[in-house]
Amino acid sequence: MTAHLTKKSEDISGWYNDVIQFAKLAEHGPSKGSMIIRPLGYSIWESIQKILDVKIKDLGAQNAYFPLLIPYSFLEKEKSHVKGFSPELAVVTHGGGEKLVEPLVVRPTSETIMYDAFSRWIQSFRDLPLVINQWNNVVRWEKRPYLFMRTTEFLWQEGHSAHETADEAQKMQKDALDMYLDTYQNYLGIYGIAGKKSESEKFAGAQETFTYEILMPDGKALQGCTSHDLGQNFSKAFKVEFQDKSGKMQNVNQTSWGFTTRSIGALVLAHGDDNGLVLPPRIAPTQIVIIPILGKSTDEREVKSLSEKDYTLLKSKDLRVEIDNSDQSPGFKFNHYELEGVPLRIEIGAMEVKMEKIRAVRRDNKESFEIPLERLLSEVEKILKRMQSDLFEKSREFTHENTHQAESLEELKRIMDTSRGFIEAFWCEDQKCEEKIKEETKATTRCLPFNSPKVEGKCIYCGKKAQYRWLFAQSY
Amino acid sequence: MTAHLTKKSEDISGWYNDVIQFAKLAEHGPSKGSMIIRPLGYSIWESIQKILDVKIKDLGAQNAYFPLLIPYSFLEKEKSHVKGFSPELAVVTHGGGEKLVEPLVVRPTSETIMYDAFSRWIQSFRDLPLVINQWNNVVRWEKRPYLFMRTTEFLWQEGHSAHETADEAQKMQKDALDMYLDTYQNYLGIYGIAGKKSESEKFAGAQETFTYEILMPDGKALQGCTSHDLGQNFSKAFKVEFQDKSGKMQNVNQTSWGFTTRSIGALVLAHGDDNGLVLPPRIAPTQIVIIPILGKSTDEREVKSLSEKDYTLLKSKDLRVEIDNSDQSPGFKFNHYELEGVPLRIEIGAMEVKMEKIRAVRRDNKESFEIPLERLLSEVEKILKRMQSDLFEKSREFTHENTHQAESLEELKRIMDTSRGFIEAFWCEDQKCEEKIKEETKATTRCLPFNSPKVEGKCIYCGKKAQYRWLFAQSY
Repeated sequence: MTAHLTKKSEDISGWYNDVIQFAKLAEHGPSKGSMIIRPLGYSIWESIQKILDVKIKDLGAQNAYFPLLIPYSFLEKEKSHVKGFSPELAVVTHGGGEKLVEPLVVRPTSETIMYDAFSRWIQSFRDLPLVINQWNNVVRWEKRPYLFMRTTEFLWQEGHSAHETADEAQKMQKDALDMYLDTYQNYLGIYGIAGKKSESEKFAGAQETFTYEILMPDGKALQGCTSHDLGQNFSKAFKVEFQDKSGKMQNVNQTSWGFTTRSIGALVLAHGDDNGLVLPPRIAPTQIVIIPILGKSTDEREVKSLSEKDYTLLKSKDLRVEIDNSDQSPGFKFNHYELEGVPLRIEIGAMEVKMEKIRAVRRDNKESFEIPLERLLSEVEKILKRMQSDLFEKSREFTHENTHQAESLEELKRIMDTSRGFIEAFWCEDQKCEEKIKEETKATTRCLPFNSPKVEGKCIYCGKKAQYRWLFAQSY
Repeated sequence: MTAHLTKKSEDISGWYNDVIQFAKLAEHGPSKGSMIIRPLGYSIWESIQKILDVKIKDLGAQNAYFPLLIPYSFLEKEKSHVKGFSPELAVVTHGGGEKLVEPLVVRPTSETIMYDAFSRWIQSFRDLPLVINQWNNVVRWEKRPYLFMRTTEFLWQEGHSAHETADEAQKMQKDALDMYLDTYQNYLGIYGIAGKKSESEKFAGAQETFTYEILMPDGKALQGCTSHDLGQNFSKAFKVEFQDKSGKMQNVNQTSWGFTTRSIGALVLAHGDDNGLVLPPRIAPTQIVIIPILGKSTDEREVKSLSEKDYTLLKSKDLRVEIDNSDQSPGFKFNHYELEGVPLRIEIGAMEVKMEKIRAVRRDNKESFEIPLERLLSEVEKILKRMQSDLFEKSREFTHENTHQAESLEELKRIMDTSRGFIEAFWCEDQKCEEKIKEETKATTRCLPFNSPKVEGKCIYCGKKAQYRWLFAQSY
């Protein structure tokens, strides 16, 4: 099977499609832009959900569920919101055999329907903060679908909060982004640059949008997640008001933040290689696979018994371990679990039984280890921990090596024509220059990285005064 | 707040709506028949998901996710399926600003879109059995919405399987139903009658449908869940074929089975009382609430310290315990947690500190206990266990007390006009008699209970020969 996998170095997009197909992660659905998430792909999503759901609840959020179908008039209440989402909507015009009086929109995001409820639920400062999260599906019409990266329907969590003060909302927006950064860095093993979106790139209806931008191996940037400070834009449109401690009515300050199945695309692209997926141990649905190797002269009973013993030991420590006793050949199994990206393979044959050692092979760099049985658990834990941090380090190094500075439009063009990557360049923050740069180079502003030094510079497009180097790249 | 709760005995439907509103379980959404599931309601759903997800995986199922939007032509492939679901469909006619060439249906259930994929995934007997489950939302247009019971959109899991033989499919259908029975009986504490649906009541496209019918306090029956033996109906329509061990092409045998948020409605109705919800301990998001009682002369520090100590002890044993240190009065708190149905309340005040005992009160029957500190954990566990089984026992007794036999149509009518309830009556299994009985009495066949004795009888409608007493009731 892996024999036919396109090489990542030769055709990354062909490789990406092959890996997703061969490893049975997902496939295109019958309607335009839709996606079937197959069991392996979905189990990665379950890993992500498990990690994030605990963190989200630690932020003080409660899970809830709001309706899929939203009256179109709700979207119209916040002007920039409806303008931003209109072109992407799926519209239900008929229900129960009848034409609907008012068309319903399949939710592209839930600000409007949630804040309509918030306006009833919130009366006083005692009702604040209100932090609600939902795990659901959303639909945004996609004309150039790309599995996981751009699909008409995707799965995500969307967190929404309401606060007394702007400061509290800003803190929540920041805490949510930090939670995502921790998830990307310490679980998915993916480095990125966090910062603020430009006016034109921010969420439709937000005051400010913050992002984690990830550089993919093809030199394009993926927006990994977003966290929005909504200010009072929606609370004014939806009349979400509370009586403050002094008895005065005020609008709440709000945030929203989301993390999607797109992260699985990032995971595939960032770590995968010519043999298939490479899953970081903390996210891998299966962390270790034990493969008993049965030769002709092997004492089958002894090999199986040692395999089972090791399986039980690792399992008892909550490691996600599997044992493959099927009648396929060891070579077939090696390929299969490499394709699926299982972090560690353990081989147990006659030799291993005799020497009281087992052989373990790391998925990412093929490093192999001879582990004495009495140290199995501690060594396996050490290897997995090391692999986890190595993957992140590799991702960080790749990003740094492919981050350039451009002092002029020509330089930016040249970089875009050759290697692409992240490009730091002065921009005057005028939307017209941003548009022109995009038109001429395909590069868009990805974000103003946090802690960017304020310096004197000249916009690479118009030459006027610029204060910061923004991060540019071609976006997915 | 509880002062205004309608009495369950006086107006059960008014009581039901009040409880759901006051306990903040759910509310109607803005579009017809839609529902907002509020945090307490959703946390009950999370409890159910946690229990069922493990069981579903133990059945050998893998979780996956299929698209929300299904081409209308897919539904048309299985004739009785499209006929059954057509009147309930929500239809997307516009997407991305354009009119769609083929309208898309918001999934009412996923047989069609899943089996289209199954036909590609399944080639050989080696690919079988294939058991796929998804947790998702479905839409079936509802003209008489009733929170949790009948909503246009609801949440559920839908399991789907494909097998080599009809026997294997039947076993899977049965195992799935048994899993649901275990969940209802041993977690939700709800008794019911399991059996086979009549031809007219079975799932559109199924060969046979099995159900768990629950008698609600108002004497109406709720279909608690269903498990379908689909035979080869869909596998013929969608060409889901495999090469068997002898090399011959065959159609797979299939099942599907679902469990929905309707179960939360059953939970509310079955156990609740005039003070609000009563949640069985094994399903309650919070099993125990500790309420420190601070009087004027109380040593606040000692009360709080004992409360915290008990909290930590119970928490360490994975009991779902909360402590309420807010500045509301104890009376307010008692009412609040009664409304929310928390199974056990623990009160700790100066007296309790002094006597080294705590007071605990069971939610359902108000039984109170003085528990010496050194036996806290074992006593609490005992009380919760007892409450769990008492609730089920009560549900079973209620069902038995309200199950009648009718020997004639008149008798059935008389029962329906007075107490309602489950009614066992001979029926000849002719669909016309079933329709007439429904027309004249509102009672429909709920199921043919498992292990019904085969006896000589006469149909209560036409007087012709009947073999079994079917279970009749007015349905939700």
